[in-house]
Amino acid sequence: MLTNCKAIVSVIGGHKCSKEVEEIAINLGKNIGKSGYILVCGGLSGVMEAAAKGAKQTGATTVGILPGNDKCVANPYIDVAIATGLGMVRNTIVVSAADAVVALAGEKGTLSEIAFALTLEKPVIDLGNWGLPGMIKASSPEEAIQIIEGVIK
Amino acid sequence: MLTNCKAIVSVIGGHKCSKEVEEIAINLGKNIGKSGYILVCGGLSGVMEAAAKGAKQTGATTVGILPGNDKCVANPYIDVAIATGLGMVRNTIVVSAADAVVALAGEKGTLSEIAFALTLEKPVIDLGNWGLPGMIKASSPEEAIQIIEGVIK
Amino acid sequence: MLTNCKAIVSVIGGHKCSKEVEEIAINLGKNIGKSGYILVCGGLSGVMEAAAKGAKQTGATTVGILPGNDKCVANPYIDVAIATGLGMVRNTIVVSAADAVVALAGEKGTLSEIAFALTLEKPVIDLGNWGLPGMIKASSPEEAIQIIEGVIK
Amino acid sequence: MLTNCKAIVSVIGGHKCSKEVEEIAINLGKNIGKSGYILVCGGLSGVMEAAAKGAKQTGATTVGILPGNDKCVANPYIDVAIATGLGMVRNTIVVSAADAVVALAGEKGTLSEIAFALTLEKPVIDLGNWGLPGMIKASSPEEAIQIIEGVIK
Repeated sequence: MLTNCKAIVSVIGGHKCSKEVEEIAINLGKNIGKSGYILVCGGLSGVMEAAAKGAKQTGATTVGILPGNDKCVANPYIDVAIATGLGMVRNTIVVSAADAVVALAGEKGTLSEIAFALTLEKPVIDLGNWGLPGMIKASSPEEAIQIIEGVIK
Repeated sequence: MLTNCKAIVSVIGGHKCSKEVEEIAINLGKNIGKSGYILVCGGLSGVMEAAAKGAKQTGATTVGILPGNDKCVANPYIDVAIATGLGMVRNTIVVSAADAVVALAGEKGTLSEIAFALTLEKPVIDLGNWGLPGMIKASSPEEAIQIIEGVIK
Repeated sequence: MLTNCKAIVSVIGGHKCSKEVEEIAINLGKNIGKSGYILVCGGLSGVMEAAAKGAKQTGATTVGILPGNDKCVANPYIDVAIATGLGMVRNTIVVSAADAVVALAGEKGTLSEIAFALTLEKPVIDLGNWGLPGMIKASSPEEAIQIIEGVIK
Repeated sequence: MLTNCKAIVSVIGGHKCSKEVEEIAINLGKNIGKSGYILVCGGLSGVMEAAAKGAKQTGATTVGILPGNDKCVANPYIDVAIATGLGMVRNTIVVSAADAVVALAGEKGTLSEIAFALTLEKPVIDLGNWGLPGMIKASSPEEAIQIIEGVIK
């Protein structure tokens, strides 16, 4: 069976972020939208909100995979808010849904997503100086998208 | 925080279905799209495919919550294919994501989704003669949508 | 690879129950222990607690699959309390872990477990007048154990 | 409600391991058993099997949280084999169940468990030169147990 569903890029990073990281996330979101990808994220604040904000500016569909049962906590740039009730286990769905993952600056939760994505053998683009073996280093959102276009045929 | 995300109607039912049930599912999908809701389903064949087909005809966004890690199994009417890797446990996400659930004819998997939705205190519309306590009976897709518009403010 | 792990019987039912159902659950737990099975349940009150209480009286290992991250909510007859953080989704683990499931009186949560167990093609013994297709009717805990001994080789 | 359930130590590490790491895992398992803790692991080979083997030598209850629906894949030192059907998502249950986690040498899967455990604010003992912020360094299984006895009251 042929599927028509679009490729998904998941953006992961901290629920708090610096002004600089926020700019990168918005810019990344814009590029995801321009390339015709769907943006998936954890649906909350910080990097998740900035990436969704950027993606909406270029017309992308934005999806937030939420930890609780209440979708009202989704940030205002999420089109499709999926309440999972899985708590932090929802991190695994954020990356299992992805054709490619882009990791910005974050903490333990982001690290769990990177590790989980690598376990599932997803391409994981490093836009946050994580430097973990198996990640693909990018120096800008534009370069991240170029890499993604290479790995998603 | 105000969320802009649209209401979600999840349609559940068998992965095989009769011509008659298929018609009902297509019609239900059309009405979901006309009302501006997002359609969520399990992403595979039968009722899931028919409902997504109908929804696409009226411009809805369609989401398939898939059991495996391979999104290529999604039916051709799914816009956003979420590969979960959770196996049958993905049934719980199909209903936890919903603002309202509509149940058509199905078997054990559909029953697990109905029971799970009732446990989460979601409105569950009965369009498949399930007759379980707690479900809300509807006699047509149009009536199902009317009920949903009443319960989702 | 040969495994030495014992067979698991999962007991499901309401977190509140009548005196009569409590007696059946205690009696069932005793018989599970006498037969050398491990008892798995949801770890909380009502049928779960009564079955675990009975099982402990005959030396069984008792396992509680808990919804939250706090294991202190387990009833006092649980040896192994598995905090999942999955919320109601933990219902699916209660039955996926089982070699056989016994269903006593309960409500929506128990129904979700029955349906999920049938989906996974587990033997589901009906000791609570559920009367769903696919369940195996038993009239007493002793008969339930006899049936289980027949289906678990 | 007072719970009588014993403290759980989860041991994580690669499904393949060197002779040296195997010795450490066996020794750690023995010490977990001597201290009266329950051992939880992923139930398969390598570090999981070695730790369970050691734990059985000192009478511990051993629990394996398995990825698939087939419990026959559990290693022969597992008493309680919990088939989850969650795939790699079962990694999250291995650590959510723990009062303390000990990480030996491993790869991406182990890293996902470490990160997830840190996210859940579990004490994570580093017995594998991971060196991640938030982990507690130990130089031997005996020191790992001493640390655990300090953090689990």
